[in-house]
Amino acid sequence: MQTITVNLGERSYPIHIGAGLLGKPELLIPHFAYPRAAVVSNETVFPLYGERIMQTLKNAVIDAFAVVIPDGERYKTWETLDTIFDALLARAFDRKSTLVALGGGVVGDLAGFAAATYQRGVPFIQIPTTLLAQVDSSVGGKTAVNHARGKNMIGAFHQPGLVLADTGTLDTLPDKELRAGLAEVFKYGLIRDAHFFAWLEDNLEKLLARDTQALAQAILRSCEIKAAVVAADERESGERALLNLGHTFGHAIETALGYGQWLHGEAVAAGMLMAAELSHKRGHFSHDALQRARKLLQRAGLPLNPPAIPAAKMLQLMQIDKKNEGGHIRLILLRDIGNAYIDSDVTEADLLDFLQHYT
Amino acid sequence: MQTITVNLGERSYPIHIGAGLLGKPELLIPHFAYPRAAVVSNETVFPLYGERIMQTLKNAVIDAFAVVIPDGERYKTWETLDTIFDALLARAFDRKSTLVALGGGVVGDLAGFAAATYQRGVPFIQIPTTLLAQVDSSVGGKTAVNHARGKNMIGAFHQPGLVLADTGTLDTLPDKELRAGLAEVFKYGLIRDAHFFAWLEDNLEKLLARDTQALAQAILRSCEIKAAVVAADERESGERALLNLGHTFGHAIETALGYGQWLHGEAVAAGMLMAAELSHKRGHFSHDALQRARKLLQRAGLPLNPPAIPAAKMLQLMQIDKKNEGGHIRLILLRDIGNAYIDSDVTEADLLDFLQHYT
Repeated sequence: MQTITVNLGERSYPIHIGAGLLGKPELLIPHFAYPRAAVVSNETVFPLYGERIMQTLKNAVIDAFAVVIPDGERYKTWETLDTIFDALLARAFDRKSTLVALGGGVVGDLAGFAAATYQRGVPFIQIPTTLLAQVDSSVGGKTAVNHARGKNMIGAFHQPGLVLADTGTLDTLPDKELRAGLAEVFKYGLIRDAHFFAWLEDNLEKLLARDTQALAQAILRSCEIKAAVVAADERESGERALLNLGHTFGHAIETALGYGQWLHGEAVAAGMLMAAELSHKRGHFSHDALQRARKLLQRAGLPLNPPAIPAAKMLQLMQIDKKNEGGHIRLILLRDIGNAYIDSDVTEADLLDFLQHYT
Repeated sequence: MQTITVNLGERSYPIHIGAGLLGKPELLIPHFAYPRAAVVSNETVFPLYGERIMQTLKNAVIDAFAVVIPDGERYKTWETLDTIFDALLARAFDRKSTLVALGGGVVGDLAGFAAATYQRGVPFIQIPTTLLAQVDSSVGGKTAVNHARGKNMIGAFHQPGLVLADTGTLDTLPDKELRAGLAEVFKYGLIRDAHFFAWLEDNLEKLLARDTQALAQAILRSCEIKAAVVAADERESGERALLNLGHTFGHAIETALGYGQWLHGEAVAAGMLMAAELSHKRGHFSHDALQRARKLLQRAGLPLNPPAIPAAKMLQLMQIDKKNEGGHIRLILLRDIGNAYIDSDVTEADLLDFLQHYT
């Protein structure tokens, strides 16, 4: 097991990474103020790992009950959140009890937002079971639900007290989801670590073959980068926005298609290539870098192009991105592999012109 | 104009109290990072004061639009919140723009929760137009919506950047709402300031006659106490719970009757007397103190008894109070006028027995 700490003063917390962590009560015990928990999971994950975590909580002498929600991005809504609230209130779940998220990004975002807002905030633990959640969404305290007009538009910053990434849960992850998770791993290389990007190029076959050591290494490095960025800029007033590479395009794709049509990681993959191409067009990011980025995504079986969405529709959706300020679109672009920056100078006309190349 | 500061480090903010403040752009200007605002108000208040605040914002060169919601506690729901989100997204309202709440407690709680969760948090200004909101709900950062199973069960702590209490807006306040607001004023005397309580006994006729100076004095002292308590315990881990005197009973009354049947202040009045009577029963709070409390509420035309609700139902609703811990009900009780404490020793059997006296 390896441990990374997210340094946020008195709200600092550990990320434990390793195989078999779901079965270790000693990792959970220090993080419960009161021995009471609710485990939020979905209909796919709970039958696989629910019994194991309930038993581990029992072994830790923690009284727990489960709240099982439907599986899928299209359920990342207020309605699902309300079923969680209803279950908690029916059990008189109180403000000192702990909410545990067991699942992928949707479960983590929903349960995290429930924890942020139930009785104005309760403690919260992330047990991510997908690659995407282990390398990205479970770390850093961003929680949200989707709105018909925009992805993740309603949410809160609410840090977990612990992230428990059991790499053994990746054994049952569908191939398509493994690949989608790799998109977020590639992101860290692109924005901040050229050496890691080269390592990913060298080790992609192992990752796709689910080599345990390679996966653990990729998760560890991703979490190290994410933890450092979050510690430096928890509420995304600056540097943290760089972690949004590909996401302004990606969120617009997800919203336009309808949530759940493309996996989040797939939309981010296409969005990252769009950002890379726009960067190249604007005189940064060399042709060689662009080829390397495209090649890596292609080898991972990720989408290289966005779906057919009218450029005007894409632009309209990008205008309600959370990074925008004073009516200006702000994009995360790339100077080189390992070097991202915030660009506020792309005009709407430029962007519309650029988007039209994809339609 | 008088000003009180709520001291919360870098999140400190002023409460300005005085007549005519709605017309002063110079009070607003320092609190806008970007000159863009959305004013959330309701169908009763906006026709009265909406034009004035929109003009003041315009004079401050702030670009503003209004979002008008229905009036009443029964609209303090996720559905209304969603209409606010929808209006903000339709205008591409961004994370640096400011949400302004113009209205009473419902508007403030709803707009505050919208500000806490829209794009994971935007700046926020409170312009309370009822006595209850000016002395209590607009100060301290508690925001919420109701859930069918419990009042204020879903919410967030999100401090405003400014509270602007224009005492002139009380001129149009219905008498019933003025009296309900006085219940929260009495609360401060009961929990923390015997001298203020005596002042209220001496000045009640003036307050009921809307004497400008008496009202300003009552608002000022209430805000001073609230600001001091919030500064000492922002997230209600201790002392702040005392501000909940009468609220555990009161919230149960509001939930049982259906939101909006009784005004919040009316339910709190009946709840405070219940707390006073239980305190007396448990050997604190003298007969004389009890008589003084009852007398003051009676003179103010506030309810002295709860409505007829089965004791078992009241108990069940009180079991999901936010102050409860580890399955134990925690009540705010009184030792004397000006001296409240948290009691975790009242058993369910005791409470049921006590509640049966009212049915």
